Amino acid sequence: MRSATIKDVAERAGVSLKTVSRVINNEPSVHARTREKVQREIDALGYQPDPSARSLRSTRAYAIGLVYDNPNAHYVINLQRGVLAACRSSGFGLQIHPCDSSSPKLAEELRELVHRSRLAGLVLAPPMSEQPALIGALSQAQVPFIRIISARKDPQDGHPCVYVDDRDAAYAITEHLIQLGHQRIGFLWGGREHRSSLERYQGYEDALKDYGITLDRKLIVPGDYTFDDGFRGARKLLALKERPSAIFGSNDEIAAGVLAAAHSDGINVPYELSIAGFEDSPFSKQSWPALTTARQATEDIARHAAQRLIGDLQREANGEPPVTRNEGFSPELVVRGSTAPRNTAPSGRGGRRKSAT
Amino acid sequence: MRSATIKDVAERAGVSLKTVSRVINNEPSVHARTREKVQREIDALGYQPDPSARSLRSTRAYAIGLVYDNPNAHYVINLQRGVLAACRSSGFGLQIHPCDSSSPKLAEELRELVHRSRLAGLVLAPPMSEQPALIGALSQAQVPFIRIISARKDPQDGHPCVYVDDRDAAYAITEHLIQLGHQRIGFLWGGREHRSSLERYQGYEDALKDYGITLDRKLIVPGDYTFDDGFRGARKLLALKERPSAIFGSNDEIAAGVLAAAHSDGINVPYELSIAGFEDSPFSKQSWPALTTARQATEDIARHAAQRLIGDLQREANGEPPVTRNEGFSPELVVRGSTAPRNTAPSGRGGRRKSAT
Repeated sequence: MRSATIKDVAERAGVSLKTVSRVINNEPSVHARTREKVQREIDALGYQPDPSARSLRSTRAYAIGLVYDNPNAHYVINLQRGVLAACRSSGFGLQIHPCDSSSPKLAEELRELVHRSRLAGLVLAPPMSEQPALIGALSQAQVPFIRIISARKDPQDGHPCVYVDDRDAAYAITEHLIQLGHQRIGFLWGGREHRSSLERYQGYEDALKDYGITLDRKLIVPGDYTFDDGFRGARKLLALKERPSAIFGSNDEIAAGVLAAAHSDGINVPYELSIAGFEDSPFSKQSWPALTTARQATEDIARHAAQRLIGDLQREANGEPPVTRNEGFSPELVVRGSTAPRNTAPSGRGGRRKSAT
Repeated sequence: MRSATIKDVAERAGVSLKTVSRVINNEPSVHARTREKVQREIDALGYQPDPSARSLRSTRAYAIGLVYDNPNAHYVINLQRGVLAACRSSGFGLQIHPCDSSSPKLAEELRELVHRSRLAGLVLAPPMSEQPALIGALSQAQVPFIRIISARKDPQDGHPCVYVDDRDAAYAITEHLIQLGHQRIGFLWGGREHRSSLERYQGYEDALKDYGITLDRKLIVPGDYTFDDGFRGARKLLALKERPSAIFGSNDEIAAGVLAAAHSDGINVPYELSIAGFEDSPFSKQSWPALTTARQATEDIARHAAQRLIGDLQREANGEPPVTRNEGFSPELVVRGSTAPRNTAPSGRGGRRKSAT
């Protein structure tokens, strides 16, 4: 039996030679059903493409990379889900690359990753997406990428991104606490290498200012986006002579730490202490009481970012110009049981330890 | 200026032509430092390898795939971390492929994934790793893989795996509860498509039997490895006329649901109800009270699995036989605040709602 040719495959699949070639070269432009049909015939005929006839283009694996540095499992899984959704609808694979955002060799590491794994481009999560030196180096090395960043508006800095307005959502959370009657509101920072930390702090500060509440530096504690820092920060705030009646943790992990610190101190949440987080993680729905938070549509944001990257890659392949307008997202306030009006402890409960304000 | 040749690169990097060729072809056998050195010279000289001279072998992206179907973010992140650790130390990339384990086209989907993304092999998590038909189909298609499965001993079935003895750990948890004086111990199942569910149930049943406690079917509730099923299952158990004094949830997510159900019913944990989970998730350390559980070294297990797969791939490339002995792991009991001796409510607390046993 003579060995099968590309022509045999095309005839049996009822498609053009070009389409078979596209399937063999894993080009993403082929419809999934067509790809399956052609692949079936390739398998049935035992057709082996001649490797020397394949172009350099064909050595691409049609995968993109997702680069992140975040201890928050739910955030990372949602990032991955969003990027995967975009990858799947366009035939790309997804390589994941958790990294050390503080590494001085990160640009080199990512360039090598793209080269070695033949990635078509990268989705950069914060804080890497917010490091100008890294962005400059990747741009210089002509590595296609999209950034997910924290910003109030489109930065229009010449590099593609999707941006999330953290300040706006943090303002809404702080305003919610103020409207419940809270004046002494503690704030626990996230990691300074994330621009979202500054933005969330800014939302807190702006809301206090707009409502004429004087900022008390003692109520503001630095830290990282972790449970442990939430626990430690809350202990510090709860030990103050003038205790806060509400604490806003910069993310849900921090708020979870605050909740644990309150529990371990026998403080009734929300009647003696209101707690708010940021993210809308599964924990925020499952904790007791459930957490007031800001719903950050991480999966959606990541999907949009990956779609934009893949779209730009395809536009470039077709000789079309890339998109220039960047997309923005705004997390929304979600009110749950962990926040309540100030000083509303039911009689016989919580009277023991009252806020001193 | 004439274009640079592979010989120029080799001379400037001080290595053999073969080594440069290995770097160009992304073969994993090159030392990271050598790879960097060669890459630097390739970049400096602007050397472009001739694509037609590259072998079929060189079209491999040297990535492996991780296949899972699990709603538990922490479990998945730990799987990924373990596999990534093995990938990095051997120069492989990692593509992730969450899938629908109940899809009838899964074998085809994975075969296509391996082909399209040119993956060197797959790490299969449960429940895919425990589906004989899928394993048979992948084996037939000559897709290299390693399985992570739940089993008491090495299955010696001709397919490589690492196995986790869930029964043994579930026995230890149940025994711990019995030794605290509990006789009516509720059991909440995980998803039946996971062999770990059956194994954990078996550990529960075996421990009761060994301690002469009669099995009460009303205390056993089917469900999935989710918070919601834990909540629902606990509500069912807590509504029984003869309520259990302890509940063993098949994983930490289920136990988190039990904890929430107890909280919402005003039941004091652990004094009125002991709760145990399985996994040692971050939640189990952060909840109030922290959960007694079994520490499942998911990251370690996944790393060993990936190392074995990559090792076998390299052994095969060198014409050596694959490893035949499979490695086993046993989760260990971790006792925390959610379990306590039966009927030890401090006076004035918890007396209101006592277990009816």
